[in-house]
Order: sequence, then structure tokens, then C-alpha cells
Amino acid sequence: MITFEDALTLVSQKIKDIHYPKQPARLYEPIAYLLNLKGKKIRPALTLLAYNLYADDVQKAVNMALAWEIFHNFTLMHDDMMDLADLRRGELTVHQKWDNNTAILSGDAMLILAYKYLAKYPMNMVLKNLLDLFSITAAEICEGQEYDMQFETRTDVREEEYLNMIRLKTAVLVGACLKSGAILADADAKDQDALYDFGINIGIAFQIQDDLLDVYGNEAVFGKKIGGDILCNKKTFLLVCALNNSDEQSKTELLQWLSVHDQPDAKIKAVTELYDKLQLKKKAVAQIESYYGNALRALDKMNVAKDKQTVLTQLATELLHRTV
Amino acid sequence: MITFEDALTLVSQKIKDIHYPKQPARLYEPIAYLLNLKGKKIRPALTLLAYNLYADDVQKAVNMALAWEIFHNFTLMHDDMMDLADLRRGELTVHQKWDNNTAILSGDAMLILAYKYLAKYPMNMVLKNLLDLFSITAAEICEGQEYDMQFETRTDVREEEYLNMIRLKTAVLVGACLKSGAILADADAKDQDALYDFGINIGIAFQIQDDLLDVYGNEAVFGKKIGGDILCNKKTFLLVCALNNSDEQSKTELLQWLSVHDQPDAKIKAVTELYDKLQLKKKAVAQIESYYGNALRALDKMNVAKDKQTVLTQLATELLHRTV
Repeated sequence: MITFEDALTLVSQKIKDIHYPKQPARLYEPIAYLLNLKGKKIRPALTLLAYNLYADDVQKAVNMALAWEIFHNFTLMHDDMMDLADLRRGELTVHQKWDNNTAILSGDAMLILAYKYLAKYPMNMVLKNLLDLFSITAAEICEGQEYDMQFETRTDVREEEYLNMIRLKTAVLVGACLKSGAILADADAKDQDALYDFGINIGIAFQIQDDLLDVYGNEAVFGKKIGGDILCNKKTFLLVCALNNSDEQSKTELLQWLSVHDQPDAKIKAVTELYDKLQLKKKAVAQIESYYGNALRALDKMNVAKDKQTVLTQLATELLHRTV
Repeated sequence: MITFEDALTLVSQKIKDIHYPKQPARLYEPIAYLLNLKGKKIRPALTLLAYNLYADDVQKAVNMALAWEIFHNFTLMHDDMMDLADLRRGELTVHQKWDNNTAILSGDAMLILAYKYLAKYPMNMVLKNLLDLFSITAAEICEGQEYDMQFETRTDVREEEYLNMIRLKTAVLVGACLKSGAILADADAKDQDALYDFGINIGIAFQIQDDLLDVYGNEAVFGKKIGGDILCNKKTFLLVCALNNSDEQSKTELLQWLSVHDQPDAKIKAVTELYDKLQLKKKAVAQIESYYGNALRALDKMNVAKDKQTVLTQLATELLHRTV
């Protein structure tokens, strides 16, 4: 069995080794730039780990893992442009370092490149299942990004709408990365589905944790300024719950703060106080634990020895207790 | 044998019949909008015609034809945004009717949808060849768009660079649409390549004809204002030749006109006069005829009865003499 660290290292090396056409440089250089920014390659590593639950030759899962990582970075390239983000992993985003047209076109080329990696597998039912999973997941992620953008201008987003959005935008990719490893290793359909479920639940828990850390994280440990989501009115789990669960007076106050853009410290303080009053930290932690429990129960359904599953349960537990 | 008109009708009907998810509407409505704008669906019709050279059941080629048409419209959605185009087939472009983010994201969803249509075919070597052709062609078209954008700010584009750009941006798709029909019908590799060559040559001839009509077309017949390319300094075959073949004095004058934006009529008149002086219409017509000749010679290499080829030679001839 390979460890999670082994998987991360293998994936990073394979990404470094990708060969791009030399010309046109402006089409391919942004792809290499984004793929090689520092940052853990968790998703493709999950594909290798899932494959490794059933088969030893993890090299066989590398092209699938690369397809996911290239796809994921394609979504980042386009999303950063749509979201007007200047930085990605501490470095300039592609549309900032080059320009918007470059981000659009290099992103398109990345999506095509991801399919090229997928098509390296032999033509059989395994590939049929991988292709279907890949395209369905890719389309769902577009849907998630679309909902996320729509939520920006809405103040009536319901909690289940929010959870559905993060399922589409974030969690289905985690589930699909895991499931694809099981498909490649020819695991039972039941195991494939269990891994997918595990990934979905971990993915949702991860995103709620992310929302929580933005407000309640330790700034020194978290590595970025606390309250960033509050300042840009991002519809996080906390904000959506606050908008749904406040009394009329608190809600009016909250909506007023959403229109304030020139008092960052006061805005963070006031919104956090409202979150405190509504006990949203507790609510979020309860949700995270609930999804964590679902994830572990999904693993129980698998036909894989408990000790082999440890790599996944450990990962889930680390996630639950992460502070960054 | 089906006629070209039959093929166009069949494709248009199948495009109308595409079923999209209802939600999120803002992701899927722009796809249906763009795909159903009036306008001939020539490329997917070529797939059906090529298939029909070897097999009768053209319905079997419909999913491939749809994949190409969806892919082509994905490139239009993104290119129109990159090129700041307001109109497409006389209607608002997607980024104008909705907004930029919608054009990016719906375009992404279209590219994924195109692959979904491709993946409807059984998993065998035919699909392997289709997938490879599709991804290689798609990447080349991105490269072509990249070169086209780079040419906007260059005045030293060489004629062969221009021809390579239109090969990538326009011609490879025509070649690939034809070749895919032959692949699906299990035609000989030699025939597949001959159809691809035919398409490449017709595609390049088509684009040069397009450049020519912008300057020398009949405004009433052409349906759009003559000189549009001149006004926006588009690097057409004519402008590239003019920049390469003028004496120093004419070139200086031409470069000066490129920086003029407030005297449209005078600019069109002056640039056209320079084209006349350099006899560029004659040169362009000679090029078109040369590519037309190449195209017909490519068909000669095919293992298909001459009378069956008529539908393609007729199409090529109509193209050569088209006035719109």
C-alpha cells in the first residue's frame, strides 16, 4: 500500500513531467504555470489511493489522476476569472499574469487535454464508465459554479440550496476522483458507490469547514486574513444560515452590513457577533460531524479490509480537525 | 444517397430535438439559443455525407455530427467573447445577450456536452479513432484562435503563418468532420485521409474566399457591409499579402491607414486601391483555385465511385463560385 504522502509525491512528479507543445507558447505556458503552482494535489492522490485499495500497480491509475488534476485546474483558471480573483495559491491568477482571453483559451485547451489523458486507457467498458463519470461530473461542476454565481446577488438562498451548490461545485469531484480509482481497479459497483458517497460527504464537510475557518480560524495558523468571506459577502454556510434564521431586526441589520464596503473591521466584528448570537459555529460543527459520520458509514459498506481503509479514515479525521 | 440539403435538414432537426437539463437555466439556455440560431449546419452535414459514401444508415452518424456542431458553437461562444463581437448570425452574441461569465461557463458546458455525444458510440477502435481525432482537432482549433489573436497586434505576419493559422482555426474542423464520417463507416485509412485532405483544402479556400468577399463582394448580395475587415484591421489574406509585398512607400502608407479609425470610407477606399495596385484579387483567386485543385485531387485517391463523390465536388465548386 502506498501512503497519502507517496501518492501526493507521485502525482506532483507526473505533473512536472507533462510535455506541452512549444508553440503557441501563450496557449500552453499558462497551463504549465497553473498546474505547477505549489499546493497539494489531493484530488488526484485520492484516485491513486482508491485504486490501491484493490490493485498494486498504481502507475496504471496515473493518467486518470492527471486527467482529474488538469480538469480541476481548468475550472480554477476559468472560475478565478469569473470571480475576479487576483491570487491563486499566493501567486497571480492566469488572467492577471496574462489576460482574460489567455485564461479563457488556455482553460479550454486544458479541458481538452484532460480528455486526452482519459483517452489513453484501452477502449473497453472500464473506459466507458470513466468517460461517463468524467463528463457527468464535469457538467455538474459547471452547474455548481453557475449556482454559486447566482447566489452572489441573492439574499434568499435556502440552506439546502447552499448544500446542493457545494455538493456540485466541490464534493462531486472528490467523490468522482475516488470512484474512478475503484472503476479502474475493477472493484465491485457497491464499492465504487461507497467510495463516491464517502467522497461526497467528505467534500461537503470540507467546504463547511472552509467557511467556518474563514470566521473562526486562527489567523496565524490559517495563513490568510480572517473574515475575507464576510467582506466580500460570500454566501457561505454561515451567512446562508444567518439570513434564514435571524429575527426580522437582526436580518435587517445583517442586510445593511452586506451593503457596507468601507468599514472592514466593523463589518467583520458585527457579522461575527450575529453568527455568535445565532450559535452558528455550533451548528456548522454539527453539520461537519454529521457529514463525517455519513462518510465513515459509507466506508463500512465496502468489501475492503478495515486496515486498508485506514488511509481514508485518517484523511477524513485530519480534515475534521484541520485548522488550515 | 442523401443530398446535401437532406443532410442539413436532418442535422437541424436533431439539434432542435436536443434535450437540456431545466436547471440551472442560465447555464443551458444560452447553449440552446446559440445552437438554434438560423444558419446552415454545414460541418455536421459533411459528417453525414462522408458516412453516406460508405453506408446507408446515416442515423448512425448523427451523434458524431452533433458532437461537431456543439463543439463548433462552443468555439463561437468563446471566440465571440474574446473578439468582442456583438452579433452572430444577425442576433446578439451570448456574452452580449447574457454576460461574459455566462458565455465562459455555458461554453465550457458545451465542450463537455460535445464529448458526451461522442461517448454514445460503442467502446471499440472506431471510438478510439473518433476520440483522438476530436481532441487533436479541438486542440488545434484553440491554437488557431491563439495565433489569430496574436496576429492582431503584429504587422509582420508572413503569408505561410497566415495560411497555417486558417488551417488550424478553420480548415482542420472541415477535414475532421468529413474524416469522422469515414471512420464511423469503417472506410479504408486511405479514404479517411483523402477526405481529411479534401476538407483541409476546401476549408482554406473557403477562408480566403471569405477574405476576398469582404473587399470585392457585391454588398447587396453579400448581405453585409463591404470593407468590415479593413475597418477593424483584420489580418486577412489580402492585408497580410499587402504588408509583405508593398514597396517601402506603400507599406508606410498602409501602416498609417491601420492607425486611422475615424474615416471609414476613406480608409476602405485607400486600402482597396492598394490591394488593386498589388493585384491581390488575382493572387487570392489563384490561391483559391490552387486549394480547390488540391481538394479535387485528394478525392481522386478515394476508393469511392465518381458519381458518389459528386455531392462533394459540387459542394466544392459552389464554394469556389459563391458570392456570399
